[in-house]
Amino acid sequence: MPDLSVPSFLSLVAPDPSGLSVERLLLLLATILLSAKLLGELAERIGQPAVVGELVAGVLLGPSVLGFVDPTLPTLHLLAEIGVILLLFTIGLETDLKRMISVGGAATTVAVVGVALPFAFGYWVSRALGLELLPAIVAGAALTATSVGITARVFADLGKLQSVEGQVVLGAAVIDDVIGLIILAVVTDLVAGNAPSVGGVLRTTAIAFGFLAAAIVVGRLLIPRVFDLIARIGREHTVATMALVLAFLLAVAASEVGSALIVGAFAAGLLLAPSDHAPAVERGVVRLANVFVPIFFVAVGAAVDVRSFRSRDVALVGVALTTVAIVGKFAAGYAPVWIRANKRVIGVGMIPRGEVGLIFAQTGLTAGVLTSGTYSAIMLMVLVTTFMAPPLLRALIAKSGAGAGDRDSLGVAEITTEA
Amino acid sequence: MPDLSVPSFLSLVAPDPSGLSVERLLLLLATILLSAKLLGELAERIGQPAVVGELVAGVLLGPSVLGFVDPTLPTLHLLAEIGVILLLFTIGLETDLKRMISVGGAATTVAVVGVALPFAFGYWVSRALGLELLPAIVAGAALTATSVGITARVFADLGKLQSVEGQVVLGAAVIDDVIGLIILAVVTDLVAGNAPSVGGVLRTTAIAFGFLAAAIVVGRLLIPRVFDLIARIGREHTVATMALVLAFLLAVAASEVGSALIVGAFAAGLLLAPSDHAPAVERGVVRLANVFVPIFFVAVGAAVDVRSFRSRDVALVGVALTTVAIVGKFAAGYAPVWIRANKRVIGVGMIPRGEVGLIFAQTGLTAGVLTSGTYSAIMLMVLVTTFMAPPLLRALIAKSGAGAGDRDSLGVAEITTEA
Repeated sequence: MPDLSVPSFLSLVAPDPSGLSVERLLLLLATILLSAKLLGELAERIGQPAVVGELVAGVLLGPSVLGFVDPTLPTLHLLAEIGVILLLFTIGLETDLKRMISVGGAATTVAVVGVALPFAFGYWVSRALGLELLPAIVAGAALTATSVGITARVFADLGKLQSVEGQVVLGAAVIDDVIGLIILAVVTDLVAGNAPSVGGVLRTTAIAFGFLAAAIVVGRLLIPRVFDLIARIGREHTVATMALVLAFLLAVAASEVGSALIVGAFAAGLLLAPSDHAPAVERGVVRLANVFVPIFFVAVGAAVDVRSFRSRDVALVGVALTTVAIVGKFAAGYAPVWIRANKRVIGVGMIPRGEVGLIFAQTGLTAGVLTSGTYSAIMLMVLVTTFMAPPLLRALIAKSGAGAGDRDSLGVAEITTEA
Repeated sequence: MPDLSVPSFLSLVAPDPSGLSVERLLLLLATILLSAKLLGELAERIGQPAVVGELVAGVLLGPSVLGFVDPTLPTLHLLAEIGVILLLFTIGLETDLKRMISVGGAATTVAVVGVALPFAFGYWVSRALGLELLPAIVAGAALTATSVGITARVFADLGKLQSVEGQVVLGAAVIDDVIGLIILAVVTDLVAGNAPSVGGVLRTTAIAFGFLAAAIVVGRLLIPRVFDLIARIGREHTVATMALVLAFLLAVAASEVGSALIVGAFAAGLLLAPSDHAPAVERGVVRLANVFVPIFFVAVGAAVDVRSFRSRDVALVGVALTTVAIVGKFAAGYAPVWIRANKRVIGVGMIPRGEVGLIFAQTGLTAGVLTSGTYSAIMLMVLVTTFMAPPLLRALIAKSGAGAGDRDSLGVAEITTEA
């Protein structure tokens, strides 16, 4: 550990109530960026997506190994959130909405089945292993949401974001995040001792999906005109900055109506994708994303406490949850039986759980519903599913024909039909 | 004021000890970026540098007008600091060290005279207006350091950073920041009731200037080789990210030896400026700077409390301090009698005080040495000097022949001689 002390006269003049001096923040960022880029490049050398290296960097820097990065630090948490918002915004910028709607039925099916199966399986094994009703519900709920950030990043790293499978997985991951957040609202009510009403749940659901639809319909009419105007009066970097402002505002709006920040950021990207200004926006935002996105993945990695897996009980529940988490999402990949696509790629693409699973676990722990053992078991599930998907996907995609263009499906020629 | 409330289940799952939720941070950033770009473009329309618009945006958003931006918020303070670090790093990247050394004698002379005169004048008028010994010393000290950030940004906005005058002002502003921080250490000792020793002051001085010299000598040998290696094994964005890591680490190192963060960031830019990788680094960092730098200037503007200027006593001391602050630095511009350059441009370029003046005022207030009246008077000085320099410089430069190339001196042909 380097000496992090700051000369006394500097700490005197710039007291920081959050306890984080500028010097410490800069050292923290330098360490995170250096490790993430180093291990990211290394991962690519050995044929893995860069995101795997960044996650490993996080585990190594986290409290359970080197103890340099504390993922609960508020400022780090905020920067990581900006990272995942920028990631989903750039993913949205690269997404062809028409193409995504053309696989919308498949994505919705994968999302619904991929929420239902893991939840049912997770609840069932938890009860079978002796957990009470409420902890079993929280454990099941923690298995529901695929990590959009990780899954999108893996497909992007492999150059397959535009494939049919990539679009189905991305669409399903966004939808199951929205469903996951509705479940989280219900579970939070349950944990607080309130019985959630059917009407309340339906209302939350309608608002969450209505927001996405409304943002896209209204935004498609309004946003291109606003950005034409900005481009006429401002310079290129003003256009890129205004696009960032749009992403931030839509993220907040999505969160306000009970959906997720990343859903709003993704919607902002979708809205700007067909505009003439998309290249200028992308040039501006990609550089920012290069710095902030690794912070998110390092923070996800740092949340893993490798020491907690030594307990036999934790390992047992953890292995059970991990198994049903994998089986449930993999099976969901086969749910849209009508589409011609590599269903194994879809199933594996849905496996990684990340931020939403961690939020469930944290909610349960904070409310006293989960023991620290069950919490660690959920952590193990998040960890294994996150780390297994990238290399597995890579192997599957290589097998299905590496020569296939980015816009083709993997293994079969095209989408045949869909309403 | 928009409704900033967050759905209860989200605040439950993501409690933030610093009191700033992700939603609030995003709204804050969106507001800052939107206002800064809007007023920045507007300032350019009416013939002013964009930085003036960003400062006005800060004043308007600050606690004394709209109350939307609280500059004491720890996270905002951290982001603003990253902004000024990125600004000085990009300024360093655009600086020709040989050219700056060729005006080094002039810059040092301007810096020393520009510290001595305002300090002496400031102390004298403060005593004449009835202030005690210690408050008068703090008030004098607050007049010493030109704001590198504001002055560099103004010359850059006017396309005159590479002129002889621009280089002298930039060099002098960096040097007087280092001197200012040494004075701050001494004043902090005095405020704490300790008599500073001559040996201690000399040691601090040697360390601060030694760091800059050592970083440049060692770095010139080492850094180009390290970056050649990084460029061989990594991709362009890795090179840019590693340059950022270097800037952060040198900033921390500078601060650790008792100099300023921005001096280290500037040194990092200087080291990379002659490298083949400078264009790639600049492409990467400029986009980041476009987002973070306005946060710094808005935060500087938001620190201004326009309500405090109503008091007659505050106005009297404030006007006196402002007058000597302007006269002292303007006179310093004429100190290097031997160089052929537009000395009025140098003098006016040195006028803006910013962050270091604010830090002095804050130290004095926190330690109970300054009354809130004297604090407000210092604020008035910072405010007036910051706002008057950009339009004045612009007018002077236009008068001295707008056709002159960026690399020429303004008004006279060239630097004649210097040891």
